[in-house]
Amino acid sequence: MTTPPTSAEADIVTIGDEILIGQVVDSNSALIARRLNAIGFKVSAKYSVGDDAEAIRNALDYAIGRVQALIFTGGLGPTSDDITKHTLAQYFGCDLVFNQDVYNGLERYFLSRGRTVNEANRSQAFVPACASVLHNPHGTAPGLRFEAGGTTVFAMPGVPYEMEAMLEKDVLPFLRNRYHLPPIEHFTFCTVGIPESELSLRLKSWEAELPEGIKLAYLPSPGAVRLRLSARPGLPDAHLLMERLAWRAAEILGPAVYAMADQSMEETLHRLLTEKNLTLSLAESCTGGFIAHGLTAHPGSSRYFLGSAVTYSNEAKMRLLGVPENLLKAHGAVSGPVAEAMAGGARKVFGSDWAVAATGVAGPDGGTPDKPVGTVYIAVAGPEAKCESRRLVLGTNRLRNIQMTRLYALDFLRRKILELP
Amino acid sequence: MTTPPTSAEADIVTIGDEILIGQVVDSNSALIARRLNAIGFKVSAKYSVGDDAEAIRNALDYAIGRVQALIFTGGLGPTSDDITKHTLAQYFGCDLVFNQDVYNGLERYFLSRGRTVNEANRSQAFVPACASVLHNPHGTAPGLRFEAGGTTVFAMPGVPYEMEAMLEKDVLPFLRNRYHLPPIEHFTFCTVGIPESELSLRLKSWEAELPEGIKLAYLPSPGAVRLRLSARPGLPDAHLLMERLAWRAAEILGPAVYAMADQSMEETLHRLLTEKNLTLSLAESCTGGFIAHGLTAHPGSSRYFLGSAVTYSNEAKMRLLGVPENLLKAHGAVSGPVAEAMAGGARKVFGSDWAVAATGVAGPDGGTPDKPVGTVYIAVAGPEAKCESRRLVLGTNRLRNIQMTRLYALDFLRRKILELP
Repeated sequence: MTTPPTSAEADIVTIGDEILIGQVVDSNSALIARRLNAIGFKVSAKYSVGDDAEAIRNALDYAIGRVQALIFTGGLGPTSDDITKHTLAQYFGCDLVFNQDVYNGLERYFLSRGRTVNEANRSQAFVPACASVLHNPHGTAPGLRFEAGGTTVFAMPGVPYEMEAMLEKDVLPFLRNRYHLPPIEHFTFCTVGIPESELSLRLKSWEAELPEGIKLAYLPSPGAVRLRLSARPGLPDAHLLMERLAWRAAEILGPAVYAMADQSMEETLHRLLTEKNLTLSLAESCTGGFIAHGLTAHPGSSRYFLGSAVTYSNEAKMRLLGVPENLLKAHGAVSGPVAEAMAGGARKVFGSDWAVAATGVAGPDGGTPDKPVGTVYIAVAGPEAKCESRRLVLGTNRLRNIQMTRLYALDFLRRKILELP
Repeated sequence: MTTPPTSAEADIVTIGDEILIGQVVDSNSALIARRLNAIGFKVSAKYSVGDDAEAIRNALDYAIGRVQALIFTGGLGPTSDDITKHTLAQYFGCDLVFNQDVYNGLERYFLSRGRTVNEANRSQAFVPACASVLHNPHGTAPGLRFEAGGTTVFAMPGVPYEMEAMLEKDVLPFLRNRYHLPPIEHFTFCTVGIPESELSLRLKSWEAELPEGIKLAYLPSPGAVRLRLSARPGLPDAHLLMERLAWRAAEILGPAVYAMADQSMEETLHRLLTEKNLTLSLAESCTGGFIAHGLTAHPGSSRYFLGSAVTYSNEAKMRLLGVPENLLKAHGAVSGPVAEAMAGGARKVFGSDWAVAATGVAGPDGGTPDKPVGTVYIAVAGPEAKCESRRLVLGTNRLRNIQMTRLYALDFLRRKILELP
């Protein structure tokens, strides 16, 4: 009897000219990597190739016998530039054969959309005779599975939500059942408002005392830094150990730590507002609906989120939020008093417990000497009468300014609700 | 005298454990690939390695002498997990030396933010003696440039907007000046509402007659398909030829073609509304601010965009938009009459020429037998009295439903303004 393997590796290869020429950002491979880690697989290579038979064959040559799984995504569509299926059939030396089950699935797929199977889609029912077929409930391209030299080769469609469904339903269960590996453990916690270099100084002695087998990484994004602890595979009680270490760091860092998990500020507020049974509304100028979108991207947000008045024009600020005209004239739309009046107005018109407002110069144009691009005011109004605002000094990049305003505005709300400094 | 090269290739390598474990989606390499194509470079390999000296050395071994440029991003930060700089210094056999210019830049960077250079950041002023330094105006990690075996090796920070600035300022001009290549030509045009397989049938004879040296690719995304023509490098008058071909396809496809360039529906409406000097407002329920965000992500949107009433609750629909309570009771919030009342209400309260509304069940929960998840109504109100609505039947994925609703709602507006079917 052989001992069960304690580790396994995978290559992730995305197929498509559109990725090599940069027309599409590949989000599939990040998702696949996370899910593979969770079932104990280490990703040893992650790369992109064009719609090019030779490049696909090279990827096969490189992986087979070296790693336990090779996962392709992309190039399975019904159009002439999609060559993955033919290339794999040729590589593994078998023909494409008509598969009635796949065809029935196509019929059901189109019927539910009030359409019939056309000629281009009919070709998708032909699959390599030597492959196992992975059913695609959300699209028309079936996935494929091959075995060669100890390596399982998967080919999945490139459309992210089709891929994700197939990964969860077929690929991960197959690999989990075959290898039974312990997950690769990570523990991530999140900070806001402290630059990476300052964080690393504050955590210097904590970091120096990290035990053997625990690795730390800083993952900065605009306005926030996530800290990730990773454990050496097989380290006993790794999760508990990392959780304790993270809590010690959180004590050092104080209220800048907004989550003891890998979660967004929106998810943090989702939990907070739901738990405390509070409602929220927004008044957005420079963020243009982005704060509302961040909250409503999560199912269940209607339990606490009542709405947002996206008031881009001064007229709209007056009409929808009741911001007094003299306030706009005296201070300008980008000012603390107007931000506070917007928050107060939103709280009133939506009838919410809390309200958050943002008004600013997102850029790249529209700045003045007094209020240069990147000047933003955020305000929070709550059940207590007093409304508070803060000035942010951001940069010149519009999208970055919008993102950072959202983060800081929601963080301001978090601190007010939790009565943190 | 040697003839100038007519082609050059590059490898793009992203460095960071966070990419291999899937905690970060790499958007840098897509941007770099696009920009390299525009100066005539073909991307021959695009892959990710961990924060791992051996993997970085392997990437160097693989590229040097084989391609003209190797572009690294990531791993240049001030924290202990960032090893790119040390690894490169070692590989190229030189020491890290203190660079006064870099230090002065750090001082200026921190001064402008009211801070001083700390110890962790001071270490960033040490650079490999054998590298040329690329100044980082937006951050603290300098970029590096090395020469070896006919290959120029660049190392840039991983933070996207720092990387992008350095790419534009240093990397691309350097490669452009050295190689003087014609750009690799692509021509992309965009369709909405026709599935990929049906498009390929409609375009079958057009596609069969594409001239030698022109390649076609379909780039599907939820609700839309972009079509990309690519020319073989050096093909004479490639751009003009591809443009003519694209226009012929557009004639076949009709109003489903929303742009004769690689642009979003938002950019299309940005142009249309700006050119026609029209204003727009929104009433959003299920899209939760996402339509507003898409429009306001573009500088200059304040010229036509007045605002959005994101009304998640029925109360808010009544108060902000004047939707009659009996309408909500008779038809439910997810209905054509309510969508039309929302659009009409937005047009009135914001005083805009046009208004768009969306209300639906985004999911994954909240469906009823009558209105299952994915049922959405969109409406457009314009200068003519009549308001129109449409029912969409979408799927069960919340974010996808929100995205598709945005696309179809704005496409509905486009067709109404242009009086297309």
